[in-house]
Amino acid sequence: MTITPTGEALRRALDGPHHEVKQRWRAEVSADDMVRDPAMPLEQAREWALEKLVGLAERKFAIAGFPEEVGGQGTQAQSVAHFEMLAMGDLSLTIKSGVQHGLFGGAITNLGTQRHHLEYLPATISCERTGCFAMTELGHGSDVQSVETTITWLPDSSEFEVHSPTPSATKAYIGNAGQHGKWAAVFGQLVVHGENHGVHVALVQIRDDELNDMPGVTTGDQGHKGGLLGVDNGTITFDHLRVPREQLLDRYGGVDESGTYTSPIESKNARFFTMLGTLVRGRICVAGGAASGTRKALSIATRYGLQRTQFRRPGLGAEITLLDYQTHQRKLLPEIARAYAYGFAMNELSLALQRVSDAAGSDPRAARELETRAAGMKVALTRWANDTIQVAREACGGAGYMSSNGITQIRQDADVFATFEGDNTVLSQLVAKALLLDYKQTWGDLDLRGTAQATARMLGGTFLERTTARSLIDRLVTTASRQPESDKLRARGWHVQMFEDRERHVVEGLAKRMRAAGKLGADEAFAAINACQEHMLVAARAHTDRVVLEAFIEAIDHVDDPYINSLLVRVCDLFALATMEEHRAWYLEHERIDASRSKAITQAVDDLCQELRPVALELVEGLGVEERWLNSAMLDEAKPAEVTVELAS
Amino acid sequence: MTITPTGEALRRALDGPHHEVKQRWRAEVSADDMVRDPAMPLEQAREWALEKLVGLAERKFAIAGFPEEVGGQGTQAQSVAHFEMLAMGDLSLTIKSGVQHGLFGGAITNLGTQRHHLEYLPATISCERTGCFAMTELGHGSDVQSVETTITWLPDSSEFEVHSPTPSATKAYIGNAGQHGKWAAVFGQLVVHGENHGVHVALVQIRDDELNDMPGVTTGDQGHKGGLLGVDNGTITFDHLRVPREQLLDRYGGVDESGTYTSPIESKNARFFTMLGTLVRGRICVAGGAASGTRKALSIATRYGLQRTQFRRPGLGAEITLLDYQTHQRKLLPEIARAYAYGFAMNELSLALQRVSDAAGSDPRAARELETRAAGMKVALTRWANDTIQVAREACGGAGYMSSNGITQIRQDADVFATFEGDNTVLSQLVAKALLLDYKQTWGDLDLRGTAQATARMLGGTFLERTTARSLIDRLVTTASRQPESDKLRARGWHVQMFEDRERHVVEGLAKRMRAAGKLGADEAFAAINACQEHMLVAARAHTDRVVLEAFIEAIDHVDDPYINSLLVRVCDLFALATMEEHRAWYLEHERIDASRSKAITQAVDDLCQELRPVALELVEGLGVEERWLNSAMLDEAKPAEVTVELAS
Repeated sequence: MTITPTGEALRRALDGPHHEVKQRWRAEVSADDMVRDPAMPLEQAREWALEKLVGLAERKFAIAGFPEEVGGQGTQAQSVAHFEMLAMGDLSLTIKSGVQHGLFGGAITNLGTQRHHLEYLPATISCERTGCFAMTELGHGSDVQSVETTITWLPDSSEFEVHSPTPSATKAYIGNAGQHGKWAAVFGQLVVHGENHGVHVALVQIRDDELNDMPGVTTGDQGHKGGLLGVDNGTITFDHLRVPREQLLDRYGGVDESGTYTSPIESKNARFFTMLGTLVRGRICVAGGAASGTRKALSIATRYGLQRTQFRRPGLGAEITLLDYQTHQRKLLPEIARAYAYGFAMNELSLALQRVSDAAGSDPRAARELETRAAGMKVALTRWANDTIQVAREACGGAGYMSSNGITQIRQDADVFATFEGDNTVLSQLVAKALLLDYKQTWGDLDLRGTAQATARMLGGTFLERTTARSLIDRLVTTASRQPESDKLRARGWHVQMFEDRERHVVEGLAKRMRAAGKLGADEAFAAINACQEHMLVAARAHTDRVVLEAFIEAIDHVDDPYINSLLVRVCDLFALATMEEHRAWYLEHERIDASRSKAITQAVDDLCQELRPVALELVEGLGVEERWLNSAMLDEAKPAEVTVELAS
Repeated sequence: MTITPTGEALRRALDGPHHEVKQRWRAEVSADDMVRDPAMPLEQAREWALEKLVGLAERKFAIAGFPEEVGGQGTQAQSVAHFEMLAMGDLSLTIKSGVQHGLFGGAITNLGTQRHHLEYLPATISCERTGCFAMTELGHGSDVQSVETTITWLPDSSEFEVHSPTPSATKAYIGNAGQHGKWAAVFGQLVVHGENHGVHVALVQIRDDELNDMPGVTTGDQGHKGGLLGVDNGTITFDHLRVPREQLLDRYGGVDESGTYTSPIESKNARFFTMLGTLVRGRICVAGGAASGTRKALSIATRYGLQRTQFRRPGLGAEITLLDYQTHQRKLLPEIARAYAYGFAMNELSLALQRVSDAAGSDPRAARELETRAAGMKVALTRWANDTIQVAREACGGAGYMSSNGITQIRQDADVFATFEGDNTVLSQLVAKALLLDYKQTWGDLDLRGTAQATARMLGGTFLERTTARSLIDRLVTTASRQPESDKLRARGWHVQMFEDRERHVVEGLAKRMRAAGKLGADEAFAAINACQEHMLVAARAHTDRVVLEAFIEAIDHVDDPYINSLLVRVCDLFALATMEEHRAWYLEHERIDASRSKAITQAVDDLCQELRPVALELVEGLGVEERWLNSAMLDEAKPAEVTVELAS
């Protein structure tokens, strides 16, 4: 399959630090390795996913991030890149891998010690030891600290007893629990001599080699879902199940042979959030996976928009290509720009994960920033994925609804990304909390009233910190400030100022309201804080928008080829202006722009869509999804010739 | 199953003219009659849909709108009401009925003559004669006038030859064509003695009783789709197939025994759009069906939001009910308000259909207004459906993604509503055209350049006409204009003014641009008109918003019970203010409101959500979906007690 030189160069730029890993996928992984027939029914889809996962693991494609001593190969950052590439094939397979290697394997890696690594990881990597990440319960999803499952120390036999005391303690929606999982990392309240030390994790065998439930374990199959048919979600309950002492993942807290609980972290809360924090990679991967699915949908819809014609040009006879219509450009081009923006921000996020991982606990502030960034990105990218894949589907009309054309399955699979690995509404509030408290508190370590009270204790001022390339951005801002008003629309420095201003104002306004609420009594405080919830969502979004824009700007700075650089500048302008257009009501309400500037922003988005339309094919090639993975019957072999557009400097 | 008295009264109000028909469904139709197991694979789903359709037709549930002499029972308006109720069961079954009775049966009813009715309709109604509506082709969907299939008069044998001259002439995405259909109403260019008389429709047998393709016909099965698995979409091609002269549906044009073409309508264009116009009911039904699916999703999500708790109230201990969170209220309550608004507007639309149908061609302006209204409503309700069912899914978290909880299937089935029966983007432009030309031209009878030129010929001025209850609304507007500014936020007269003002300004602005474009040469005109496309979408939306608000206001006027009346006034306020909030950037850009008023609108939406939250259960009961149809495993039997809220007058 050919790709235009421009597409190739854009791909290299967008792959950034992960170009080599990603090229390996493109060179070695066929559609047969990872693209599912969308008509496959549930049972087959499950078998298919397990089989393909084993195949990819054998070929060392899903094992980055594990310790080298047990067969791992590649960094934490690279494990994110692998996940992103797998998600260009099939999201069921991706989540199957995420459950097995990312969550189950990640729990053992991060919450266990070397003993656990040596004993459990090799078979986990190869998928012989299929595993579940048994955190969520029927009664408690977002509120993990309230899970009801107990892990109780039995002094007489030096064992733990894992138990589900109520129906709502049933582990639910657990991947691999429906059918394939033999082991589970079970989250429960650790009770030692009557004292609750908070949530800990025990490894538990739930099924034997013939996949029969182990004694004391009852699994249930949750069956058909809105998508992700390749993942077997299910329920697990425990009836006074005994497990050996060694099966507690005790890196952050365990019970010694004498029956004494010890932990390197004294505070129960801090311990809990430290443990959860080590699992941040899952959220980063979900963001990246959602974006990959969206890139694929955009690739299909854009290629279709370039081949499909409808209605004749009045007086001229020829039928008009869909992508020549303003409405069609408006549907796809701003989203392609967002795909670039989010892609560059994902690269930066994966490197931040690597830094925090390398620091091994020595930089808690960086860890908290990472968790906040990961949460904000997860929210933004999964929301964008759901909305944009739908736009892509509709842009292909009835053809887009046929499963054989490749979009509907992505839409259905990506749907749940908005609520798993942290519900988006809840995560947004955690982001807002972190911004309010300037990352000074353990992440998540406060309820909302506590946050309000802590905010009230903090002095005023703004907490906005540039996330990257400060000098580069300062330079752009300075340049923009010297430009006449009329030229600012396309000045990246002005875009940064507008994004920063929005974030700062929204967070400061929120801080004022929270401070006031923090001074109220419990009853009134709930109402006052509750009334801030929508404000918190806006704050989280404004923060993430700014972080993404800065990542885009920094990435452009590293692109030496002048044509590709100038093309990416246009794409960045489109991202920035489309984002400002989306929020123009806010800018108008806060008198940051007047009515004519607001209309000019809309006009600029129209113009940029038209400017970039001739390179639409190259732009989607740059998104990096191999054509053979698109799995879309409606796309012709024939492709339009490469185009280079004249760009004003 | 019990329903609160308030829910019952709201249901009666929202059912309006169709209360009796709708109550018959609630009394007589069980879940088993029309609710599908979401895990059912494709083959089974198809058989299920056909079987259930036959069963409902036998019980006289899908036969309104057919002539009484062939066994029909009920009016055109009632046929819409039946469709809405069926859509509360299963959208696959609904569309299966829509294909068989609405489109295939409707084509025979509206485009055929009594001869066709007597011969074909009885078996069509009973589903013995399964039929397809073979309009769309691979090459042409939205542009029906360009279909390539030919229906050529053969003078030697007095037959027609139906033929697919090219691969792109293949009929595609046709319901019933994949498997069950034995007959088809085929749209093709009618060619008589070498002259093309434009698109006409012939009845063609495509399969024999054993479902083998007839000679000269090749059908194809398009297999798995993004939803609507119960509908077997497929392709049909014709190879010089001969059909008897009598099988042309010749109400608007046919060939007599001597081989002479005659038509009551001279203009080819006018004839085409008159024929299409008789099929307007399909679009109205799609709007209503989408809304029913959305009502069901909102009913499920709201009931779940009332039973589910998560996180504790700080300092108070008890876990908080989801619907007490501001973000959760914001997700669901404005959409419940929209469900009422769209429901009242649907009632009015179905009555307008009845009036136009009764007028039997004597009021062409009313017919054009109806087509415009139907198109605008179809766009608005199907867009809202896709967005809102997704919101409902996410509001239920992971549980919402389990097929057994009833939402994901609605989401998948409703998806295609945005692009079938007229692509929403194309339909919006047709609405805008009709507004520009004040319904004076045959609907659809102009390409965009023709529209621009015709707009240029028209004198200035506004075309806005109240659709309903002029005196009532004038009274409200007068009252509002006397109120102090601070009281206007909840004055319906002010809402109407704001909606009307937006529509008028947007349409006038568009008219100016189109007039300018109409004066340009062909080449420049395309670019200038193309640049107006987004403006046209805004115009269509502004028009529909206003029509819907007026329908809501008129419906309230007919509700005598003072408590229900005052409750609906609040719901109407929420609809109006949430709509203004959505478009507040426009109002700010055009200086209709200032920054503080804009923020006050947002605050008023927050307040209304909180005011209505205590009656959330009653409000969703009023949406009229029987509890036994919800098919949602997660909903408990237990329901909160009925609540009556104090409403300020």
